[in-house]
Amino acid sequence: MDSTGRCLGLGTAGSGNPVASGVESVALALGAAVRQATTSAGLMPASIGGAAVAMAGASSVPLAASPEHPFISAGLSAAGVDAPFVIESDLLAMFCSGSSELDGYGLVAGTGSAAIRVRDGEVKAVSDGTGWLLGDEGSGFWIGHHVVRAVVADLDGRGPSTGLTPLVLSRLGIDDTHETRRSSLARLAETVYDMRPVHLARLAPVAFTVGDDAVAVAIVEGASQALAHTLGTVLDDGVDGPLVLGGSVLLHQATVAAAVETSFRRQGGSGVVRVADGVAGAAVLALRHWGVAVDPAVFARIEASLAALRKL
Amino acid sequence: MDSTGRCLGLGTAGSGNPVASGVESVALALGAAVRQATTSAGLMPASIGGAAVAMAGASSVPLAASPEHPFISAGLSAAGVDAPFVIESDLLAMFCSGSSELDGYGLVAGTGSAAIRVRDGEVKAVSDGTGWLLGDEGSGFWIGHHVVRAVVADLDGRGPSTGLTPLVLSRLGIDDTHETRRSSLARLAETVYDMRPVHLARLAPVAFTVGDDAVAVAIVEGASQALAHTLGTVLDDGVDGPLVLGGSVLLHQATVAAAVETSFRRQGGSGVVRVADGVAGAAVLALRHWGVAVDPAVFARIEASLAALRKL
Repeated sequence: MDSTGRCLGLGTAGSGNPVASGVESVALALGAAVRQATTSAGLMPASIGGAAVAMAGASSVPLAASPEHPFISAGLSAAGVDAPFVIESDLLAMFCSGSSELDGYGLVAGTGSAAIRVRDGEVKAVSDGTGWLLGDEGSGFWIGHHVVRAVVADLDGRGPSTGLTPLVLSRLGIDDTHETRRSSLARLAETVYDMRPVHLARLAPVAFTVGDDAVAVAIVEGASQALAHTLGTVLDDGVDGPLVLGGSVLLHQATVAAAVETSFRRQGGSGVVRVADGVAGAAVLALRHWGVAVDPAVFARIEASLAALRKL
Repeated sequence: MDSTGRCLGLGTAGSGNPVASGVESVALALGAAVRQATTSAGLMPASIGGAAVAMAGASSVPLAASPEHPFISAGLSAAGVDAPFVIESDLLAMFCSGSSELDGYGLVAGTGSAAIRVRDGEVKAVSDGTGWLLGDEGSGFWIGHHVVRAVVADLDGRGPSTGLTPLVLSRLGIDDTHETRRSSLARLAETVYDMRPVHLARLAPVAFTVGDDAVAVAIVEGASQALAHTLGTVLDDGVDGPLVLGGSVLLHQATVAAAVETSFRRQGGSGVVRVADGVAGAAVLALRHWGVAVDPAVFARIEASLAALRKL
């Protein structure tokens, strides 16, 4: 983009999460995305004056404590960009994709889940975001994990019968037509233990598509309550501002988003926005970092020009 | 042992779980244990007429469906034993360690958890035993996982303060004296994500040693209820017999064992025995397989001679 917030080029590539994918893979993805962005903008990479990198894990201590990020320099250099860069939290970028205000709250529920309190444009408090094994309550992983455990309990006779069972077996490619419940269970277990645990998040949509099913309803309600609780942990009477919702669960599952919104309003909050990603927010953070005030006009320009690029 | 049930030699070695440790490692452990047993008995390995192998996973379909177990032959051969062998469920061996009756129930809660119904000396129903990611409700893993999630929620501000937190940090070697809660949380997360998930079972004892702590009490009650439920799933009016309890949680945690026992009695059951392992049961199963009826006198002989060997 230029310094008025007009977005000129856009690029997307693979995972940018160094914890999940490793730094080499992130460097490659970053290089590919930046190359696409400069090419589609018709800009010489050498003319780029600065970059903001909104990255998963950037609010966690181990990463923040490391002053150098050679893999980011490597990724930018691979695309011919040797400009200075600033690293920002992906959660903050998500918030800034939804609002140009300096105070407010962000709640993300994709594969993982986390909430932030933003004040004066900075993250002042984080809740959860502790990963599939330790937290991420109400996230896509959490929902998918509860779904598959409910299916196992059903097949095992420990839990109630649920419409989730045939849907999950079919989604995992297990044809149960000629199987006993016990052998379906054994094949399900084999399949799941061969997966990376976080990929259980792929089963989350089943909870929303199964229709009227008591087990699924309880899981979805549990996720909504957990997310409302995670958000509640960062709410502060002294910080008044909008709530920005991000991540596939909040973006695509109206039930969960509505439950969280109701809880936010009940606690005196107002102004809820849903965003698809943190790209606009990364633009906001880059401008701010290089001294451009992002007023509503600049923010509107980012949004409109980015929307136009997305349509190409 | 001889054919009257008198145990003559005993050997122990590493893990015998082919799913957790791999078949090569199991073959080595099996060979080492058998060699110890024949040596301490003063027997020529070639004089052994038969073997019963009580093995984790032997009741699961993939293993039972495989007619050949070359890694077991390899393990026995390495100890000079070329006798025929029979593979039995470790859960059934646990039951047979506690009772010579042909009908009854077994409940195990170690790292994992499972219940069985035994009729005519065979496993007729299994509940749970589906592993850390899919089930094992109330097991050591389940307790340890709930413990560490409660500690993360405490450090994160999402959950109540709990006495589990300092105990878990100290057990994982995290000195939190000079740390903020946020940095303790980051170090805890780093440590746990470097562990194999099942090793979270090592944190289970903390729930029992913390003393009067509402969070720990709720976890222990949850485990007791889950185990009673798993057992309840296999109870059958037509099968009357004792309940044999095994695994470190039921062996060492009187609270949990008492809760399960109360639930068993409330449903009309009687006769509860706790056993340390499945060794006596493997002896019972070997005798039965080679046509020796295990009456109370034979069973008492196995128990007494095995106890004497354990004291050596």
